[in-house]
Amino acid sequence: MKRFDLDYYLNGLKAENTVVLAQAITLIESKRRSDQDLGDLILTEILKEAEPSIRIGITGTPGVGKSSFIEGFGSFLISQGKKVAVLAIDPSSQRTGGSILGDKTRMEMLSKNPKAYIRPSASGSALGGVNNRTRESILLCEAAGFDAIIVETVGVGQSETLVNNMVDFFLLMIQPGSGDDLQGIKKGIMEMANGIVINKADGDQAKLAKRSKTDLLSALHLFAISDSGWQTQVELCSALEHKGFDKVWSMISSFEKQMKGNGLFAQNRCSQNVTWFEDRVNLGLLQVLTSQPELTRLHQQLKYKVQENECSVSQATAELLALARQLLA
Amino acid sequence: MKRFDLDYYLNGLKAENTVVLAQAITLIESKRRSDQDLGDLILTEILKEAEPSIRIGITGTPGVGKSSFIEGFGSFLISQGKKVAVLAIDPSSQRTGGSILGDKTRMEMLSKNPKAYIRPSASGSALGGVNNRTRESILLCEAAGFDAIIVETVGVGQSETLVNNMVDFFLLMIQPGSGDDLQGIKKGIMEMANGIVINKADGDQAKLAKRSKTDLLSALHLFAISDSGWQTQVELCSALEHKGFDKVWSMISSFEKQMKGNGLFAQNRCSQNVTWFEDRVNLGLLQVLTSQPELTRLHQQLKYKVQENECSVSQATAELLALARQLLA
Repeated sequence: MKRFDLDYYLNGLKAENTVVLAQAITLIESKRRSDQDLGDLILTEILKEAEPSIRIGITGTPGVGKSSFIEGFGSFLISQGKKVAVLAIDPSSQRTGGSILGDKTRMEMLSKNPKAYIRPSASGSALGGVNNRTRESILLCEAAGFDAIIVETVGVGQSETLVNNMVDFFLLMIQPGSGDDLQGIKKGIMEMANGIVINKADGDQAKLAKRSKTDLLSALHLFAISDSGWQTQVELCSALEHKGFDKVWSMISSFEKQMKGNGLFAQNRCSQNVTWFEDRVNLGLLQVLTSQPELTRLHQQLKYKVQENECSVSQATAELLALARQLLA
Repeated sequence: MKRFDLDYYLNGLKAENTVVLAQAITLIESKRRSDQDLGDLILTEILKEAEPSIRIGITGTPGVGKSSFIEGFGSFLISQGKKVAVLAIDPSSQRTGGSILGDKTRMEMLSKNPKAYIRPSASGSALGGVNNRTRESILLCEAAGFDAIIVETVGVGQSETLVNNMVDFFLLMIQPGSGDDLQGIKKGIMEMANGIVINKADGDQAKLAKRSKTDLLSALHLFAISDSGWQTQVELCSALEHKGFDKVWSMISSFEKQMKGNGLFAQNRCSQNVTWFEDRVNLGLLQVLTSQPELTRLHQQLKYKVQENECSVSQATAELLALARQLLA
């Protein structure tokens, strides 16, 4: 990996150079201390000149058509004068590198558009398989002039919460028919979603999609309206037939307008910064501790003992934590 | 929460008393230091007399019928002389407490069986929303005489890896038709799975289920055979019609026999202990650090500054980590 100086990155981002953007994200993802320090300098600088943007999170089970939707919706946003960046959070990529966005050809049209930037998810992972640099990547994309950021995540699980903590608008994508089986959609995700899009509302499924919308809307009434005063909306869409992108965008725009009106847009981003801070602190503190030679040595010894069944996990943990407490005393 | 002494828990578990089992799991899940210490004592004691057991992880997207399958399959296992415990990992429960196993009535038949124990997932969460006490709960269930442990997880995401790291056999459940759309099943999860069950192989879908099996088997040939020499198997099942449980069980039994034959069963559990140790150490080290008054004070101050936008996340993190390094120097 080639490294450059602070000015190189700052000038390149200012010039909206996507090659430099890619290099900056790679730098941010690096585990080297010096890279991280330089990355922090870049972030601190670019935050001084932050431009308005909208960050959209998209989730949905595999096969629901997220990639096709993003391909079409991204092109629609570009036609509306936006520059679109697509990022991904893929916590399950620990073993194989994952498939999410891994193949840029899945969004062939969009990836060729000079006003789009698609970043495949990093295969590297930190603290539990989560690539925790997506937040920083969003800021870098924005510094490079991208004002619509789409963060894709796979299916159900912790990734939902992660993405929800870094976007302005959280969109749940489902298929026609899912509304019948509300057990299938976890309440937590329904509550997180600011909007629900029923994709594949075309051909044979158009009618079913309409019924799903009705079912969903009545299900949504079971939930209390959120503190923000926003009522989750449901829209139909066909990524295949390029229909409904305008309605999805107008849903997101109404949300943005309402949240900016009541001050919650900025307030939400501030709370997200706190979460981001906590995540970075947790990760950083662990790195600080595990770089203590004495602790590292005992850690290795105990790990071996656990592996060989010479020591229970509880005993080993207690012994290591005792040393940590002693070092800090 | 009522607390008891070590002997109370040990005797209760030995007597296979499920009330005491529930109390012990609650103790283990507590965040109080004294509870955790007592929990560690219990774990260290029960590990001395560990009995043979089989730990089965089950994953699949919502709506695939995991609950109905576990209800039926659990009853089948009991008819084979087993005692069955059902636990859940639900990383998305951070906000609402989640729906997974939350409603015991979803497994009404099984939950009434005295040879079954069903533990709804804890709503409390630690380090990134993950209820990291499932591993300990497995051991407690085993100490209480349960020799078939089923760990359920929701959908795709990090939870798969978590569960895979604490079970002997990892089962992926899909619906008929999913085999056509291999993009929908992440390669990582396919590789993790020791067996795949196609549920809902009944009525109109019976034929489709058979074709899915063929598709899946040929897809599985794309993967190299795992280091263990085990080739992932695919079985059909209808939880609705109570069909196929015997085949699923015979698949799991063959796996168990083969892995015990080549020594990998025990070796896998030892490796899992190492992962468990690492998880506990990471969590414990953070607790040790964050209990330092000086660090806690600065942490609170910086958090406030981040919240009020007076300080960038990068700067705040750097300042806090500098203090941590200083404290350890």
